[in-house]
Amino acid sequence: MIVVMKVGSPEFEIERLSMELKSLGLTPEKIVGKHKVVLGLVGDTADLDPLQFQELSPWIEQVLRVEQPFKRASRGYRHGEASEVIVSTPNGEVLFGEHHPVVVVAGPCSVENEGMIVETAHRVKASGAHFLRGGAYKPRTSPYAFQGHGESALALLARAREVSGLGIITEVMDSPDIEVVAEVADVLQVGARNMQNFSLLKKIGAQDKPVLLKRGMAATIEDWLMAAEYILAAGNPNVILCERGIRTFDRQYARNTLDLSAIPVLRSLTHLPIMVDPSHGTGKADYVPAMAMAAIAAGTDSLMIEVHPNPSKALSDGPQSLTPERFDRLMQDLRIIGNSVNRWSKTTVWA
Amino acid sequence: MIVVMKVGSPEFEIERLSMELKSLGLTPEKIVGKHKVVLGLVGDTADLDPLQFQELSPWIEQVLRVEQPFKRASRGYRHGEASEVIVSTPNGEVLFGEHHPVVVVAGPCSVENEGMIVETAHRVKASGAHFLRGGAYKPRTSPYAFQGHGESALALLARAREVSGLGIITEVMDSPDIEVVAEVADVLQVGARNMQNFSLLKKIGAQDKPVLLKRGMAATIEDWLMAAEYILAAGNPNVILCERGIRTFDRQYARNTLDLSAIPVLRSLTHLPIMVDPSHGTGKADYVPAMAMAAIAAGTDSLMIEVHPNPSKALSDGPQSLTPERFDRLMQDLRIIGNSVNRWSKTTVWA
Amino acid sequence: MIVVMKVGSPEFEIERLSMELKSLGLTPEKIVGKHKVVLGLVGDTADLDPLQFQELSPWIEQVLRVEQPFKRASRGYRHGEASEVIVSTPNGEVLFGEHHPVVVVAGPCSVENEGMIVETAHRVKASGAHFLRGGAYKPRTSPYAFQGHGESALALLARAREVSGLGIITEVMDSPDIEVVAEVADVLQVGARNMQNFSLLKKIGAQDKPVLLKRGMAATIEDWLMAAEYILAAGNPNVILCERGIRTFDRQYARNTLDLSAIPVLRSLTHLPIMVDPSHGTGKADYVPAMAMAAIAAGTDSLMIEVHPNPSKALSDGPQSLTPERFDRLMQDLRIIGNSVNRWSKTTVWA
Amino acid sequence: MIVVMKVGSPEFEIERLSMELKSLGLTPEKIVGKHKVVLGLVGDTADLDPLQFQELSPWIEQVLRVEQPFKRASRGYRHGEASEVIVSTPNGEVLFGEHHPVVVVAGPCSVENEGMIVETAHRVKASGAHFLRGGAYKPRTSPYAFQGHGESALALLARAREVSGLGIITEVMDSPDIEVVAEVADVLQVGARNMQNFSLLKKIGAQDKPVLLKRGMAATIEDWLMAAEYILAAGNPNVILCERGIRTFDRQYARNTLDLSAIPVLRSLTHLPIMVDPSHGTGKADYVPAMAMAAIAAGTDSLMIEVHPNPSKALSDGPQSLTPERFDRLMQDLRIIGNSVNRWSKTTVWA
Repeated sequence: MIVVMKVGSPEFEIERLSMELKSLGLTPEKIVGKHKVVLGLVGDTADLDPLQFQELSPWIEQVLRVEQPFKRASRGYRHGEASEVIVSTPNGEVLFGEHHPVVVVAGPCSVENEGMIVETAHRVKASGAHFLRGGAYKPRTSPYAFQGHGESALALLARAREVSGLGIITEVMDSPDIEVVAEVADVLQVGARNMQNFSLLKKIGAQDKPVLLKRGMAATIEDWLMAAEYILAAGNPNVILCERGIRTFDRQYARNTLDLSAIPVLRSLTHLPIMVDPSHGTGKADYVPAMAMAAIAAGTDSLMIEVHPNPSKALSDGPQSLTPERFDRLMQDLRIIGNSVNRWSKTTVWA
Repeated sequence: MIVVMKVGSPEFEIERLSMELKSLGLTPEKIVGKHKVVLGLVGDTADLDPLQFQELSPWIEQVLRVEQPFKRASRGYRHGEASEVIVSTPNGEVLFGEHHPVVVVAGPCSVENEGMIVETAHRVKASGAHFLRGGAYKPRTSPYAFQGHGESALALLARAREVSGLGIITEVMDSPDIEVVAEVADVLQVGARNMQNFSLLKKIGAQDKPVLLKRGMAATIEDWLMAAEYILAAGNPNVILCERGIRTFDRQYARNTLDLSAIPVLRSLTHLPIMVDPSHGTGKADYVPAMAMAAIAAGTDSLMIEVHPNPSKALSDGPQSLTPERFDRLMQDLRIIGNSVNRWSKTTVWA
Repeated sequence: MIVVMKVGSPEFEIERLSMELKSLGLTPEKIVGKHKVVLGLVGDTADLDPLQFQELSPWIEQVLRVEQPFKRASRGYRHGEASEVIVSTPNGEVLFGEHHPVVVVAGPCSVENEGMIVETAHRVKASGAHFLRGGAYKPRTSPYAFQGHGESALALLARAREVSGLGIITEVMDSPDIEVVAEVADVLQVGARNMQNFSLLKKIGAQDKPVLLKRGMAATIEDWLMAAEYILAAGNPNVILCERGIRTFDRQYARNTLDLSAIPVLRSLTHLPIMVDPSHGTGKADYVPAMAMAAIAAGTDSLMIEVHPNPSKALSDGPQSLTPERFDRLMQDLRIIGNSVNRWSKTTVWA
Repeated sequence: MIVVMKVGSPEFEIERLSMELKSLGLTPEKIVGKHKVVLGLVGDTADLDPLQFQELSPWIEQVLRVEQPFKRASRGYRHGEASEVIVSTPNGEVLFGEHHPVVVVAGPCSVENEGMIVETAHRVKASGAHFLRGGAYKPRTSPYAFQGHGESALALLARAREVSGLGIITEVMDSPDIEVVAEVADVLQVGARNMQNFSLLKKIGAQDKPVLLKRGMAATIEDWLMAAEYILAAGNPNVILCERGIRTFDRQYARNTLDLSAIPVLRSLTHLPIMVDPSHGTGKADYVPAMAMAAIAAGTDSLMIEVHPNPSKALSDGPQSLTPERFDRLMQDLRIIGNSVNRWSKTTVWA
């Protein structure tokens, strides 16, 4: 941490502050600049809040952080190596990570009935998907919109898992539901709106299933890594980060702005695997293929794509869902891009 | 709802779509424009999702909503009249609403120990505050930062309530904690990061204590009113809306951008009382007085201001906290502005 | 400037870098922290680009600026004193500044014809305005929208000035027009869309008329002060800063987000006078009064308000214009708020 | 245009408004809904401002636009066909467009001296670039930063053009400079900060050289297409749209947020060719390759990449510039992605 003093700070105040900093266990090193005095703080400052320091003296102009606030999530924590998240599914282990082929998660926004979820599972598996997504509990902007079928939908996901062999990824919205969701899900999703629901993060970090952490609509990269840090610090090392579009001033055509630069940025900062969700990221089926292609070219480890057997009848998110046919065509295009960057599975995944 | 067809839509497709809309219980009225055909949908469309409609035909260009998506929160729901939220405190009833004096809520970010919370309560009461705020459960960006003292802090808030007579406003972060918080709090706060934690909203809407709903960092006015709608629809009519700054591109000096235009906008859209929190809204104590003054001039019904006996030692949010002395001076200035717009209590509030 | 080295930076690279920094005329002071080495650069660093420094070594993690990039615009440049901008108008001198009454600028978005501009001038003067605004050259999003009457409108402004005695504020959009506009205008306005038209800023800084510099829609406070710095550095010290709303994710009700916290932030950073434009800042006449009141309470030095004799017939910006009657009522309310903060002229301005 | 009346609008007001609309040459068609009355306006409404209409009656709730505000820029204007921009360079014609190979523009931020610009031209040409970029006039945030060498730099660009045969793309910042820049440049660039400098757009639209129009930092897709419309309406059909990152709340790692979804969005809305600038779009050389790859996968027609022989000594934008070596490696990777989507030139471009 670096403390920048205001122009004209009295010498005795700098002395007083230095003493106070020492009493906090830090060693302040003073640099006398042309206009300003700067104190470099040597010691364990990673957990300290720069803004809090600013209150130590009215003569402090600003406090700059030198250490990153995230630790377990940082790339340095694993000495620069990528981590991999291994998920056991009926069809076998699936590995998420920088040194593995792109993992594809597909399925409807919400589980509507047995027929549609089983059909979707079969269709997306046939096209090469590795996981089935589908919401049992749905965060909806309106209390009058379809809220998901809850526990009964979990049973349908279990059925789809059984018949297709695909792993299941589904969302937990409230801490009391973690246990029941974890009985069915192979990966627990924390949605964008709950990315800073810290109580949920702590509790989901205290159970064993891998976690898919979606980026909040207004979350900076640092906020997002700190949310992952909550899960890691609670003991669960298996976190996948999913970019799903941020909120910006332009929401007329694409509903969110898919921030694909998050891929190289995260790669440099963290060892955790990266997923991209172009369906929520754009909000419109027509834009999904281009953004899925781009995500692979930019280096994503995984994709999440909404697929619905009949988007016009979907109870939620129809406009951003692909039909199974369109998803199948997209998978063929993704294979070409994926092969060109050596990130596509050489063998058919499922025997 | 209005459906705009693309230029060149075939007549038979417009017919087919009209039939489908009728099968959904709507009456489509066709307008043939110079370039485009438009279908106005007569019927109960308020709950329908415009994006969903877009999937009904590839020839649909856009679907425009005519009805507001919020009902119970809308000003029209009360025929244009403001509602008032009445809170019983040991010192007597406090009324929040457009036709009442500005209510002032003050106190520290978090409850640190009995001495500081009791002292703060006495000090802010002496300056004219009506409620004491103080966090027991704290949403912090870092898992390594102080997380609040939890239940033991609730006991300290109860103690401060008892000795000062002030009502208590404190945050609930997780649905299992609602009951224990509601035993102490006079108003339950839902924080900005949980504004779209819909499970929490439903459960907090199913209990009786009034609710303070903070605006999410990236929540539109409409998102925010829909979050209030969750609480109202669950049966709790006592919701106060608190603007606390939104996230924008400029975070260098003020940490958030306090959106004071939310005051006249909300006034025109909803009957619910409005609060402004200039402490979180700016993140810096030096900017708080100007923004508190402005909020009253713009017509807020209530203010929430962070006050800490010793901001430089605060365990959280010190930089945006006023000292009791500075708060007292601010209250004198607020009285002048409040009187000039006839929104300040004529009598000393507490005998 | 402070250079933070990556963890594990080799000693010889730190040495090499230190030599290179010395060759640039700087004195690097090394602080060896627990994990990282930091170099504090003593010397004339205000003009240096921190990002540029990052390229000096692949081992540099980040470069932090300690000095503010603006100089002439900084409050420190005038030793903490506010500056005042004095404008001669036919009615007498008007002073903009922290220690003067609030100056009110009113008038239509664009000059439509002699009748309307002269009538508006008389009406706003009667209500207490000090300046007439009115566009001759109009920046319009669409090339098919009314673009302003240009030079002929300047003649009408001259006429309105003559008959009312009010000073004129009008926009210059292109550097070749500066001279002709300056013949009529008492204050030259640089619009939000041209805030970083640096060629225009340099040329407008090289002439004598005071300049009203509107904040760009996506300009940070720092960007804005740097734009002012262009004008100041070119020799013109008379710059007024006008907040007119920034672009954020919520544009549904208010078209822009009026950033009133810019008032206390600017006050702490710069000596320049501050103006607020609630008409563009909200885009809707109904929200203008609340925001004008708030701006005065927050400490603005000046207000710009759109007034049109018949907003529904206005050729531009009708929806955000007040009628003369509504403006007159607003001025009475502003007087009350203005008096309560001792920022309203005690005497009728114009005899 | 569709006019939505407030609940409870009196019948006579709807009649009065209908008459007024007829007097404007429009045919209002009335739809009586369950709660509201809606008027569909048949006639030539594309140029009308919806906000303006709102002023026609206090009973109007909202006015919705059905027509797109851009015409010449719309895809429909060319009956769904892409346009191509053909630029003659000493090496031959280069074609920008959806049905042509990706065009690569490379070079330094600013022209510093003859040696560096000529060397860069040779190097980027050898790697396969089609155009040399380089700034003579530089828009810089600070008046104290290097402002470009102006006219003398234009002479150096002419020299680089002559010796390399590459076409030249360089920025015009001020309308009086158009002529002198057009003497050297094969494509005139309008920078992000001047995207809504409408005077410049009109004048640049009145000359013959093709125009590269960068997206403003806070420009919506619609704003951007309207800016293109200014140029097209002034008579110049050769406009290329360049996405270069928008300004969002997260600026810590990437300086801007590169909006790659602009590619499929623009493709559906306009016939104009699309370029992506990942150098400005991210602000950091390390992120450029991933984003350049992604842009091609997403379907861009062209790329602009900053290359500098010695980024650490660059007078501007060093941190986002690639070295010639790194650019050469990137071009090899781009060729692989480009081939996989059939958008890479089969033959070596330059003999």
